[in-house]
Amino acid sequence: MIRIAVDAMGGDYAPKEQVLGAMKAIKEIDDIEIILYGDEDTIRKHLTNDERISIVQSDYVIPMDEKNPIGAIRRHKDASMVMALNSVSLGENDAIVSSGATQALIAGAHLIIRRMEGFKRTAIAPVIPTVTHKKAILLDTGANLQIRPEHMLQQAYFAKIYAEKILGIDNPRVGLINIGTEKGKGRDLDKEVFDLFTETDLFEFSGNIEPKTILEPDCDILISDGFTANIVMKTIEGTAKSMGKLLKENLMSSFFGKIAGLLARKNLKNFKKQLSAEEIGGAVIYGLKKPVIKAQGASKAYGFYNGIRQAANIVRNQVFETVENYIQNESGGEIE
Amino acid sequence: MIRIAVDAMGGDYAPKEQVLGAMKAIKEIDDIEIILYGDEDTIRKHLTNDERISIVQSDYVIPMDEKNPIGAIRRHKDASMVMALNSVSLGENDAIVSSGATQALIAGAHLIIRRMEGFKRTAIAPVIPTVTHKKAILLDTGANLQIRPEHMLQQAYFAKIYAEKILGIDNPRVGLINIGTEKGKGRDLDKEVFDLFTETDLFEFSGNIEPKTILEPDCDILISDGFTANIVMKTIEGTAKSMGKLLKENLMSSFFGKIAGLLARKNLKNFKKQLSAEEIGGAVIYGLKKPVIKAQGASKAYGFYNGIRQAANIVRNQVFETVENYIQNESGGEIE
Repeated sequence: MIRIAVDAMGGDYAPKEQVLGAMKAIKEIDDIEIILYGDEDTIRKHLTNDERISIVQSDYVIPMDEKNPIGAIRRHKDASMVMALNSVSLGENDAIVSSGATQALIAGAHLIIRRMEGFKRTAIAPVIPTVTHKKAILLDTGANLQIRPEHMLQQAYFAKIYAEKILGIDNPRVGLINIGTEKGKGRDLDKEVFDLFTETDLFEFSGNIEPKTILEPDCDILISDGFTANIVMKTIEGTAKSMGKLLKENLMSSFFGKIAGLLARKNLKNFKKQLSAEEIGGAVIYGLKKPVIKAQGASKAYGFYNGIRQAANIVRNQVFETVENYIQNESGGEIE
Repeated sequence: MIRIAVDAMGGDYAPKEQVLGAMKAIKEIDDIEIILYGDEDTIRKHLTNDERISIVQSDYVIPMDEKNPIGAIRRHKDASMVMALNSVSLGENDAIVSSGATQALIAGAHLIIRRMEGFKRTAIAPVIPTVTHKKAILLDTGANLQIRPEHMLQQAYFAKIYAEKILGIDNPRVGLINIGTEKGKGRDLDKEVFDLFTETDLFEFSGNIEPKTILEPDCDILISDGFTANIVMKTIEGTAKSMGKLLKENLMSSFFGKIAGLLARKNLKNFKKQLSAEEIGGAVIYGLKKPVIKAQGASKAYGFYNGIRQAANIVRNQVFETVENYIQNESGGEIE
């Protein structure tokens, strides 16, 4: 049995949506057990079936707007997030899913789960939907704002293993997010990464990817530093949201548009679903000793279900073990 | 009379669309003369009314994919772009509009028009449409990939004058593109810019702007370095393009969707127009001695018309003179 720890108290709709997501996951996935960390009484209100689901009482919740994430992790041993992280660190559970405060989860992951030996810089790596109906991995969306090329090589290799084992992509290709497609474009960092990725045998390098094609890229993995990839992710989100609003406004501004809007409602919903983070589950933090999945704060049951499914897939397919093994035994120093 | 030099040979549809745009501009704007630089015979084929329009023969066109832009500018004195730039540098004309190769135009602008005295780093600054139906200025979209905070202060001040005089915005507000809204977010550069902009009296600072709100920002001017703002611009473009495609696909995937799509066609067109670069004209290069307007390579007549209108507005409202005067006479050293 794969044991998934779920921080049932983080996020905007806790613990109801976590509990509903956990029950759905148990129903759909045979080889997992779920351990919910949170207030037992509140959790029980929503838990109508506790087959393979157990609860561990916790008395504190780290607030979503916590200003001192490191301090909060250190101080609140009784927080649902901290208890769930500890259970994974101690080997009681195999992975954790949390939609709690991002910075606190990152801090907690580093302090409690700790970095994989030899892996220099972690990365947050959500899977994003693309218009070509393939999925792509975007990283680093915020773990390290400033970084060296050789650390990005490790991160890209992790993404390659993830894409192969979890997304089922044969020979995944890595693209460098840049302001132009030609060699020689970008900042010093980008030029150095381009050269390093061109030389490596660890993965296939597709060269520079201009964000004009960010949602239909000619590669499977989109990489940049933790500042740039975060800006890209938030610009996609902002543009999609504003375009949706503008479209609705335009459709509603005329009689025919209104009819069209009503008729199109179901199609617009499909369209929104394709771009939805719920569909994916959450962002994996690459480079820790154990899998930590960050679900969006606004996740509903379906989002948690997908996050749990994703965590189970990672454990089942030994993604972390594969990378760790390579770095420690087979890299011959190249990746370090 | 304001004299606008138009590089009639650059871009994807030269010279036809430049000529049509010039004729429309003459019809709509009373106080301008237009000088078309290019092949006279080809231009004459499209020119049905030469009132206040003259032609200066040029024998060479810098190709859109020119690999050595600086060399091309130096070598080809007979290129339409170079001749048009020279005419502005010599004071024969007041401003130039070109949709030719971007890097060649930037190189030519620096070599021939030259930087405004005291202005340290130029910036490319397109006006972007927002969903709130206001316009916003985005900079620097590619002139300087690496930059110092005090240079960004000059650029932001230029944008403020532009927003006031050309976009008619009272007390324009400047926002720093960043990965979070709180003070202390971002790279070292972003933190230093935040502090500098907080202290300045040159403009009102709105603090950090997360790109989640990039198309409905709580400010009028969005600034970052030339790498980041370029990535933002291209991510907006890529997301909008892919979403349009996905939407069309979804609408067309069902019978009702198809009807909705047909009915919505006009509304979708409005919607596309709102986001179109044609509507704006072109990107101004801030910090040169004279106005250089870069129209998109794919501009049609309406795009050139708007570029010419924009150039005339800048000259008429003495935008460049205002910034130059401030920097040279009134800044008391602050802005330098």
